[in-house]
Order: sequence, then C-alpha cells, then structure tokens
Amino acid sequence: MPRQDFRFSMPLRVRWAEVDPQGVVFNGNYLTYFDVGMTEYFRELGFPYPDGLAPFESDLYVVRSVIDYHRPAAYDDELDVMVRTGRLGRTSLQLLAEIHRGDDHLISGELVYVNTDLHDVTSKPIPQPLRERIVGYEATPPAGA
Amino acid sequence: MPRQDFRFSMPLRVRWAEVDPQGVVFNGNYLTYFDVGMTEYFRELGFPYPDGLAPFESDLYVVRSVIDYHRPAAYDDELDVMVRTGRLGRTSLQLLAEIHRGDDHLISGELVYVNTDLHDVTSKPIPQPLRERIVGYEATPPAGA
Amino acid sequence: MPRQDFRFSMPLRVRWAEVDPQGVVFNGNYLTYFDVGMTEYFRELGFPYPDGLAPFESDLYVVRSVIDYHRPAAYDDELDVMVRTGRLGRTSLQLLAEIHRGDDHLISGELVYVNTDLHDVTSKPIPQPLRERIVGYEATPPAGA
Amino acid sequence: MPRQDFRFSMPLRVRWAEVDPQGVVFNGNYLTYFDVGMTEYFRELGFPYPDGLAPFESDLYVVRSVIDYHRPAAYDDELDVMVRTGRLGRTSLQLLAEIHRGDDHLISGELVYVNTDLHDVTSKPIPQPLRERIVGYEATPPAGA
Repeated sequence: MPRQDFRFSMPLRVRWAEVDPQGVVFNGNYLTYFDVGMTEYFRELGFPYPDGLAPFESDLYVVRSVIDYHRPAAYDDELDVMVRTGRLGRTSLQLLAEIHRGDDHLISGELVYVNTDLHDVTSKPIPQPLRERIVGYEATPPAGA
Repeated sequence: MPRQDFRFSMPLRVRWAEVDPQGVVFNGNYLTYFDVGMTEYFRELGFPYPDGLAPFESDLYVVRSVIDYHRPAAYDDELDVMVRTGRLGRTSLQLLAEIHRGDDHLISGELVYVNTDLHDVTSKPIPQPLRERIVGYEATPPAGA
Repeated sequence: MPRQDFRFSMPLRVRWAEVDPQGVVFNGNYLTYFDVGMTEYFRELGFPYPDGLAPFESDLYVVRSVIDYHRPAAYDDELDVMVRTGRLGRTSLQLLAEIHRGDDHLISGELVYVNTDLHDVTSKPIPQPLRERIVGYEATPPAGA
Repeated sequence: MPRQDFRFSMPLRVRWAEVDPQGVVFNGNYLTYFDVGMTEYFRELGFPYPDGLAPFESDLYVVRSVIDYHRPAAYDDELDVMVRTGRLGRTSLQLLAEIHRGDDHLISGELVYVNTDLHDVTSKPIPQPLRERIVGYEATPPAGA
C-alpha cells in the first residue's frame, strides 16, 4: 500500500518507557500508537472520540487487531502514524494503519471496530453523518462505502 | 525499616514489557507494583478496592507518591511487594511499601491517599470499620491510630 | 478451538493500571498478557526466554500479532492465559493464545515469531532441541512438525 | 513555585491508554510524562539523552521520585510539562517538574538522578560541560551551582 493512499498522518516520538531490553518498541505499544492515531483521525474528521459519537448514542469497541512488524522502531525515533478507513460495513468499520520512519515502512496494522449502543453495548449502524464524512474525506475510497 | 515490620507481602514477577533499554524496570512501573500491592493489601484486610469502600460512600485518591530506588529490578526477577499502613490520619492514610528480591531491599515507597466522597470527590473521614481493621491487622502500630 | 487443546495455562489477575475509561482492559495490554504467557510457556518447556535460546545463538522476534476480542476483561478479573504452538516452520513458529475467565472465552490471539541469529538478527532455523521439545510437549500436534 | 520559574516547557496530550477506570491519568504515567519532559529538556540543553552523555562515559540513574497530585489530568487533556534543574550536586542533580493544564497547576514532581560511569554504574562527577550549560540555561539558578 503506497504511502499516498493515506490522507491522514500524525507525528509521534518513541518514549524511553516504550522500549524493551531488545532495544525496540515493545509490540503492545504499537496498539497504543494506533490508538493515538485513531484518536487524531477522528478529531480530524470532526467526530472526536468519544464525544463526537455520543450525540448518536454510539460508542466504538475494537473487535480485531492485526499488527505486521516489518522493521522495529527504536528509542527517540520520529515516526509517522498514518490511518485511513479501509472498509465501511453497516455496523463495523476497519481502519488501516501504517507506521513509517522517514522512507522506512516499519509497521502495518488493521483495527476492526464495531459501532455499539452507548448504553447497552449492542451493535448498531454507524451514524450516517460519520459514514458520509469518511467517504468524503478519504482519497482512497473505503470498500463497502 | 526491617522486613518483619511488614505483615503483608505478595510475590510479583517482572515482565519483559516493564523493562527499559537500560535493562532495569522503568521507574514508573514501580508505582504499578505498589498499586498491585495496595490492591492485595486491601483485599487481605477485607476491604477489596473499590467495592469494599463503596458501602461507606468512599473512594481513595492518591495525593503523594515517593519512590526511593536503592537497587534496580531486572527482567524475570521474582520480587516481594510489601505494604503496611504507616500513618492513619482523619481523612488520609499513608501506606509504606518496600520491594525486595530475596535478601536485597531494592525499592522503598510511600503513598498518601485521601478518603473522598464517592460522588463529589471531597475529602471525608476514613470509614471507622476500615480504621479499626487496619489497627487490628498491623503488627507495627500506624502513627496516629 | 476447545480449551483442552491447550496443555499450558497460567493464571493472571487484571491490574487497575491496565483498565481504561471504558472499564475494560486496554487492547494493547492483551499483547502484554500474551507475552507473559509466552514467557511462562517457554519456561515450562525448559527453554526460558531469552537465556534458554542464547546457547543456540538464537533470539526470537515477533513479526505478526493478531487479537480477536470476543468479550472484554475487567478490573480484578482472574484470567487464564493459555498458550500452545500452532505451527512450526523452519525458521518461524506460530503461537496460539487464548484468554478465558472461568467458562467464558474472552480473547483469541496469534503470535508469529522468527528465530534470528543472536548477533546479526537474520533469520535462522529454530534450534532442533527446542523443536523436538515442543513436539513432545504439545497434546495437539503443531502443523508443520 | 510560579510557572515563570521554568524556562523549559513542552506540550503533551493525554492518551486513552493512560487513563484508568476513575477517569483520571493512572499515577504511574506521570513518571512517564516527567521522563518525556526530561528527555526534551536535555535535548534542549544540547545533551540529548543518552547519546549526549556517552562522550563523557556517563549515564544517569534515577534514585528518587516524588509526585504531588493537586488535581488530576483526564483523557485528551492538553498539558504542559515543565522541567528545570533545582539542585546541582557533585555527582547528582535534582530536576523539578510541574504539569499544568492551562492555568491549572495539576502535578508537582521531583526527580533525583545520579551521574554514573557508563560501564560500571558507579557514581562519578557530573560532566563539567553539562554543569556549565545548565547554569547558563536556567533563569532560576539551581541550588549548589
């Protein structure tokens, strides 16, 4: 997937506490990086998490995470965390994420979220305004849109 | 402070993710260890956090943490986390903690909590049954008891 | 996958610091749980990580992680973390992990590791004694064994 | 301590993974914030950690941390992490840190480091160029300078 498929990117610097004795970022911390990227992606869309979903009585729960590690990140690295919507289902959405360090593509990720009722945590359709906003925002059309 | 001043102790093994590139536990993780020790200490007292305080409309907030690092802990170390009440105020309590690895005393800590109203988070007196239980439990009498 | 497919299981209690404002374990922390499970699994096999691999000039790097979230874990939950080898390649091995809370199957995971040279981090065959030990240990034969 | 005593400040946004079920930043994470602040403070001084100390065969180990919690930080808060040198000893230095959210002073901290030999981890004098740089940088003179 070429880097230009992503319209959204944010910078992130690796913290000392995130690096393990192998000298590389501990694998679980990439999910934190993805989560920070998701937060800023939804802010960019105008639906900051979670307050932007609350008027629609909606919340998001992650149901699947995939991380592919191509090359490790190290302490003090300046990374770019890139996020886009890969697929828009009726009640679920798949985000694709990549982490780059300059021209090096380090990490690929996939995060599947289910849109749920804010109160009883059952699945419900993704709010129509969010769906339209994602379709309008993305340079690369999400599958299922 | 001799080890026998502590009646409560729990074992804890250092995780890979908790160790930094210097090969030692990242300093913030000792506060997690203290927190785990506090959780088990209150369970041992019969007031598991937070459910054991809720009937008294109480919750605890930490207002001060102190960590003195004598020697570092490393990956896979089997530690003992020891906790006791050092001081019982009217609305606050000070816990003292130590982390040992066998005969080596690695870390000393102090945690000051304020007992608060469960709903409006203002300070209120420590529930009397908890106060009495602490005094009855500790081999070393807490100051202010 | 039935629970009995796993010969190895270890208990783990959810810490306060691992739970997020939704009241559930933050998703990245399941990779820490898997990592702790992997550590104890290799200890059980007699090849404690990383010292059990060093005589073979080997180290392991994770190249892929997958987490499927069926139901969330919450603060203070007593979990079982189960690990087995799902596939034994020439230079890679796939671990399968599950997290249960009593009879509830909460989380499924997959971790793919590449065996690397301890010094130059290039891939090399899994040490034969480790391969044989895994085959001898597992009740459910790993694919590729 | 008035905010203007600090010449160095950096922005930091609270991550979802750093907030606990009470809806506030878990206390151990403030030590991560201080550590990130320390990293940027030393970069600002021209002695990026740890590479700026290596030519002097020096490394820093934390020997004491103190955190005073005045008001909690919450998810998505935009914080300022402020760091200055409070005291310059022969082999140790004390950093003072504060965390503010706009005009609200949330957290105060103290971190004591010992300068050690890079190889045998025994204490040794703080490199003279670092000492001079700190004295020249700080608006508020460190004690012991």
